[in-house]
Amino acid sequence: MSKEVKAWGATSPKKTEPITITRRAPDDEDVAIDIKFAGICHSDIHTVRSEWRNTTYPLVVGHEIAGVVNAVGQNVTKFKVGDHVGVGCIVNSCRQCANCHDGEEQYCSSGLALTYNSKDPKDGTITQGGYSQYIVVDQAFVLSVPDTIPLDKAAPLMCAGITMYSPLNHWNAGPGKRVGIIGFGGLGHMGVKALGSEVTVFSQTNSKKELGLLFGADNYVATSDPDVFSKLNQRFDIIINTVSAEIPLDLYLSCLRRDGTLIQVGAPSDQLRISPPSLYARRVGVHGSMIGGIAETQKMLNLCGEKHIFPEIETIPASYIDEAYERVMKSQVKFRFVIDISTM
Amino acid sequence: MSKEVKAWGATSPKKTEPITITRRAPDDEDVAIDIKFAGICHSDIHTVRSEWRNTTYPLVVGHEIAGVVNAVGQNVTKFKVGDHVGVGCIVNSCRQCANCHDGEEQYCSSGLALTYNSKDPKDGTITQGGYSQYIVVDQAFVLSVPDTIPLDKAAPLMCAGITMYSPLNHWNAGPGKRVGIIGFGGLGHMGVKALGSEVTVFSQTNSKKELGLLFGADNYVATSDPDVFSKLNQRFDIIINTVSAEIPLDLYLSCLRRDGTLIQVGAPSDQLRISPPSLYARRVGVHGSMIGGIAETQKMLNLCGEKHIFPEIETIPASYIDEAYERVMKSQVKFRFVIDISTM
Repeated sequence: MSKEVKAWGATSPKKTEPITITRRAPDDEDVAIDIKFAGICHSDIHTVRSEWRNTTYPLVVGHEIAGVVNAVGQNVTKFKVGDHVGVGCIVNSCRQCANCHDGEEQYCSSGLALTYNSKDPKDGTITQGGYSQYIVVDQAFVLSVPDTIPLDKAAPLMCAGITMYSPLNHWNAGPGKRVGIIGFGGLGHMGVKALGSEVTVFSQTNSKKELGLLFGADNYVATSDPDVFSKLNQRFDIIINTVSAEIPLDLYLSCLRRDGTLIQVGAPSDQLRISPPSLYARRVGVHGSMIGGIAETQKMLNLCGEKHIFPEIETIPASYIDEAYERVMKSQVKFRFVIDISTM
Repeated sequence: MSKEVKAWGATSPKKTEPITITRRAPDDEDVAIDIKFAGICHSDIHTVRSEWRNTTYPLVVGHEIAGVVNAVGQNVTKFKVGDHVGVGCIVNSCRQCANCHDGEEQYCSSGLALTYNSKDPKDGTITQGGYSQYIVVDQAFVLSVPDTIPLDKAAPLMCAGITMYSPLNHWNAGPGKRVGIIGFGGLGHMGVKALGSEVTVFSQTNSKKELGLLFGADNYVATSDPDVFSKLNQRFDIIINTVSAEIPLDLYLSCLRRDGTLIQVGAPSDQLRISPPSLYARRVGVHGSMIGGIAETQKMLNLCGEKHIFPEIETIPASYIDEAYERVMKSQVKFRFVIDISTM
């Protein structure tokens, strides 16, 4: 049976407010989830404000969802009532293209359904996200949250966590490798373990240096120091850029060893600008990476559960969302806001 | 004994003219070469005209050198008098850094000596290139030209050939892979075999389409057709950009499959501009590549000799160099000018 539930949504780019949305009745493959926590991602803010110019109002955002299974369809084998589960940025894909076949559903060539502001292939409605009490998702896109991860801290793993993990995994970070992470915010702070690599955080200032070292970074440098880039010349195998603003990429590329890769996970609205010699002088490259596949996300969750790698969060009531957005824009959060859905 | 030899050099950015240069006496490791042919590379023109603002005049350019061994130092084991040999863009490197150790001397971290306009570590002079009758080069940087390759056609392999081969080799082109080549000039026309990949040439027009297909391209498209990019969406594993002018990279990136790579071998003076979603939508990347290592160049020469893969050339006398430069700038050459050094 379909269900009316409380949510916190945007009816215009200006603000979020309490609204009511309808969730479809679970089909045989669906998992119905009582949402307990939802993280606030920068993409939520872009979407609420229609900065990507494609928002359908009214809209409930949120794709860092953690909750408890309320009911399961009759074909659901992976989950049972009471299980701790999560949902990230994707709720469906075509499941037939080469990318889906390879477990890289995030790059699905046709039919990717995002958790919000996307067309739901099951009922044709616009998908509504996690700032709400309840959601119905096909079991293929539901993640299992290990018991060792508190549910509130599990939420940011669904987007911020996998966004950092996937490129580290794909480009083979690990012991013996040197990784640079540009930006020490919601994304960057999750990467400091970097699968056992030596990690250097590039931040604008040293204001969060102690925290960075405490969380596990081996090195923390302030890019306001003009000598930083020459000191770190040709040092890194991998650099992950989490910053959404334009930064001088050529300087960072000079810090890559031969055949190194800078991976863009932030999504600036402007074009990236790169001088050709920065690339051909040492055969380095710039790639993009976008979240991760479902199996890879589960692997990341299992690793975080086993190694006790959790994000740093500030839990807030739903009524604080707009203020939290302002603080995210000013980088005044250590390090991820998580909405307590019980306050809705 | 040092030797005065005829050359064709630039005393200012305006033109080239006959000059005389002095070559050092061969040391124990050196090979003295009677140059027979020298290819004209776009970099020669940039350098003669000081468009990279670092030219030391008077200067003799030319780094696509083919000739015959005239004498060898007493420790030279790889070559003997009368051998057909070549010299490319590099005449020395530090031989100690990780890149040299890996056989990637072109990315030497310290002490790379280019064939012209560079400091020669052996005598401190500015290196002078191949538009000359004779050159002395350490044996470690001399290539062996297989007997099956005519010397005039061997010359362009030393830069244009290896510039195309190295990225195809490094990024594992071969049967089952799909390669796009942007630009069908001196570089592009050398890549159409692409180690057995399926090759599509992107050219501005179809004016050279018949030649492209004749040389072995599987597909030749004119980018003046606005539908080309949508038709080729997500088709390629590798795209090599040989064009030195600014082109809309985002359109080409849309033609890469997931995890595909666009490799920049042309050297535009402007920054490359790339929209972040073009990269993160399918985890694709943009890399640079610069010529190749000495062992890799030898491997390429052996392959070209075995498979009879030669460049298309137009042989010219030295007195025609300035006119040839003008024609290169207007893309009016099929496909590489080679100077007959006997006309000097």
